[in-house]
Amino acid sequence: MYDSLCRIARERALLSSTAAALDWDQETNMPEAGVEYRAEQLGYLSGKIHELGTSAEFRGHLEAAEAAGSSDPEVAANLREWRYHFDRATLLPRELVEEDTRLSSVAKHAWAEARAKSDFPTFAPFLQQLVDMARRKADLWGYPDEPYDALLGGYERGAKTSDIAAVFDPIRADLAEIAAAAVERGKSVPADLLDGDYPIAQQQELNRRIAESIGFDFNAGRIDTTTHPFCTGMGPRDTRLTTRYDLRDFTSSLFGVLHEAGHGLYDQGLPAAKYGLPSGEAVSLGIHESQSRLWENHVGRSLPFWEMWFPVAAEIFPHLRAIKLDSFLTTINRAAYSFIRVEADEATYDLHILLRFGIERRLLNGTLAIADLAAAWNEEFTTLFGMVPPDDARGCLQDIHWSMGGIGYFTTYTLGNLNSAQLFAAANQNPEVASAANMADYAPLLDWMRRSVHSRGSTQLPQDLMESATGSRTIAAPYLAHLRSRFLGG
Amino acid sequence: MYDSLCRIARERALLSSTAAALDWDQETNMPEAGVEYRAEQLGYLSGKIHELGTSAEFRGHLEAAEAAGSSDPEVAANLREWRYHFDRATLLPRELVEEDTRLSSVAKHAWAEARAKSDFPTFAPFLQQLVDMARRKADLWGYPDEPYDALLGGYERGAKTSDIAAVFDPIRADLAEIAAAAVERGKSVPADLLDGDYPIAQQQELNRRIAESIGFDFNAGRIDTTTHPFCTGMGPRDTRLTTRYDLRDFTSSLFGVLHEAGHGLYDQGLPAAKYGLPSGEAVSLGIHESQSRLWENHVGRSLPFWEMWFPVAAEIFPHLRAIKLDSFLTTINRAAYSFIRVEADEATYDLHILLRFGIERRLLNGTLAIADLAAAWNEEFTTLFGMVPPDDARGCLQDIHWSMGGIGYFTTYTLGNLNSAQLFAAANQNPEVASAANMADYAPLLDWMRRSVHSRGSTQLPQDLMESATGSRTIAAPYLAHLRSRFLGG
Repeated sequence: MYDSLCRIARERALLSSTAAALDWDQETNMPEAGVEYRAEQLGYLSGKIHELGTSAEFRGHLEAAEAAGSSDPEVAANLREWRYHFDRATLLPRELVEEDTRLSSVAKHAWAEARAKSDFPTFAPFLQQLVDMARRKADLWGYPDEPYDALLGGYERGAKTSDIAAVFDPIRADLAEIAAAAVERGKSVPADLLDGDYPIAQQQELNRRIAESIGFDFNAGRIDTTTHPFCTGMGPRDTRLTTRYDLRDFTSSLFGVLHEAGHGLYDQGLPAAKYGLPSGEAVSLGIHESQSRLWENHVGRSLPFWEMWFPVAAEIFPHLRAIKLDSFLTTINRAAYSFIRVEADEATYDLHILLRFGIERRLLNGTLAIADLAAAWNEEFTTLFGMVPPDDARGCLQDIHWSMGGIGYFTTYTLGNLNSAQLFAAANQNPEVASAANMADYAPLLDWMRRSVHSRGSTQLPQDLMESATGSRTIAAPYLAHLRSRFLGG
Repeated sequence: MYDSLCRIARERALLSSTAAALDWDQETNMPEAGVEYRAEQLGYLSGKIHELGTSAEFRGHLEAAEAAGSSDPEVAANLREWRYHFDRATLLPRELVEEDTRLSSVAKHAWAEARAKSDFPTFAPFLQQLVDMARRKADLWGYPDEPYDALLGGYERGAKTSDIAAVFDPIRADLAEIAAAAVERGKSVPADLLDGDYPIAQQQELNRRIAESIGFDFNAGRIDTTTHPFCTGMGPRDTRLTTRYDLRDFTSSLFGVLHEAGHGLYDQGLPAAKYGLPSGEAVSLGIHESQSRLWENHVGRSLPFWEMWFPVAAEIFPHLRAIKLDSFLTTINRAAYSFIRVEADEATYDLHILLRFGIERRLLNGTLAIADLAAAWNEEFTTLFGMVPPDDARGCLQDIHWSMGGIGYFTTYTLGNLNSAQLFAAANQNPEVASAANMADYAPLLDWMRRSVHSRGSTQLPQDLMESATGSRTIAAPYLAHLRSRFLGG
């Protein structure tokens, strides 16, 4: 019966990796007119994946395997994850799922129109339905304390809202203070130091060399160009990254590639032999994001990294030859407030997330009405950033997530930031990791992540994984120390 | 029941178009290490496609629909095709199919090694097994006259070996004579006239403009680079071509693109609403090849075409500016013998096919033993080409087809050439088509092909289609006239 569960899980993986390949193709290569039939193909595949994972056969094997139990921790972990996902998929009646799909589709459309006109009231009725739908789903799924738990858990297994709040709430003031100080400092850093000509082919060359140097395996992966960068795995040995290019600033694609390569290294480090089983799968968004942020920020914006790579970049881009390394570093770590989350820098990013976490939680708990959302957003934003959003397009309408039903997702971004600092600090407790990193040799760091994070798959819940890897569940201290050192130090 | 058959056929098309997308990705983009899992994905999909098309459910609906009959010719044609393919798939026992798959896999490997060493004897035992397997399959499938019918029919619905021979045999001497005269003329044409620098980006620009001008829809298609050029459809509105580039000769990729775009125009001209049903599918290889050869040779190597495009090419490639149009035309239509089929030009190509047709037929009928194959090849080659293959790598070992079990495939190439000339001549009976083509306006020609060929899907068998479109089944006269005019005229 356990073997049958494995067989079905691997069959589902064949289908979902195939769907991932079609998705990737749609983003990178597909001619425009292909979109309609591609949607049919993807709809068909996701129907088959759902069928396999919710079948009576699967349920039967699962119940039998649970009754038999297992002393093998991997088997126990796989059963735990299968049970969770089986329940998630079967606790919702088919009509509700169909209603949900229809709602997301019309709401996404309504959101795009409302954002274009910066007109929250036209989106409000849809958001009301989305929140109602989220509550109905949470009620069916069940939750320990509050409905937001059930939504958050879909992205971050085992996470409880109150635990997140216990970490986020106490650092709100610290984060705001660090951001304010960093932004104040940033005002004296010229914004146009790097402005120059950076042809795409040369950016690609540098990106590739750097991605390779941190361990991304191009024999089992590649980089392409898309409007919205992403990383996707489409098999145990096939990881695709994408980026976009700014012809006036090479660091835009480079940090994008470091971020996606961080996701990609996690993907490439999962145990290939267990592909399709929970023990071979990434454990959560908060852990995934810790890996992308680790390489993007802790490695990619550090002095040792650029001591190594700035001379190489200056070889490739003549514009850089007149620039000093310390000015370059100050520039890439320059902080400034932005109304827009996706444009935010490391020093200010989490304020955007705390804002959303608070609002999502209140919407779900019914302590914030949709009618009051825009005002609440603007008030909270003003408190955190000291400036007032000029319109809803640059306020509560800026993100696509809610319109797709993605309530709870944002929270994993700050969780990822906290995890990244905590994992980086723990790895650097190892003298070999630390001294190599000081010479821009990240093989020991990657090796540590491989052992402590990647190779574990989903055998442990995210917080248990953090505890094994670092000695404690997610805490804020390492991240605050990192931000202070980077933005307030010197 | 007919509706159920349509539903199952469309479901199979969802799976096979998905497999086509994975195949395309493998040829164009997939990182090397992805190959193993990709094979698993493709194996899984083809298993599902096979299951759906051979299920008891499908059989039941098919029998019921056949018993009910239909006066709608499209329905009747779909039932006819479903019956043919259902029988083809179900008449072979599973063990035989598995043995066949294993045999192709080892034989392909053995062939590659034998060719590398130019050592036919090491491949001979595999070829013996392949021929035996082909005969066993033919016996199970059944055939009107001789086993080769059953193999040929898999590529060219309804084709009978004796009918093919009745067309091929009488023109053997004519083709050899035309080739000899063309090669003799070719000797006085300098081979290096076009030798120059043709950067890929500029080749791509010209290729794209030309493909667009003959009607290839880039909104529903694209061109990529691969070692072996091909055209594949992965949905009703998504047709992908590939080509390869010779940096010293822009015509190599250009004629490749015209050839593949010819296949692509057929694909784009199939009725999209019937995608997945026989009435929405290309009818045979011999008709498909007629379309690629039409645009590659009848259009692409003609004077009116280059009166239009040579000045454009000379704008793009400075090297061409010193060359006269008539020298250019003579060069691109220069004939020379080659030992290798894939390097052969229009004047000599069919001799390679007649050679293979004769040998395949004799192998299947048992009138040629494997032990005598290499000698028979060389003797026949010498008769046709007046030169002796220096080794088996340039003789009977050159093609991959047999090693994959593809006996009967070659025949459709010459059939395609004959069809292309016959269809081109028939279309040019229409004064509008002819006068527009004289000014390199091929919209009326494409429109004629759309109406007479593409839009028909598989509603008629190939030879019935030829008869409706041109007034007769495949004949040789138009093709011989074309070759004589091109290579012996003036």
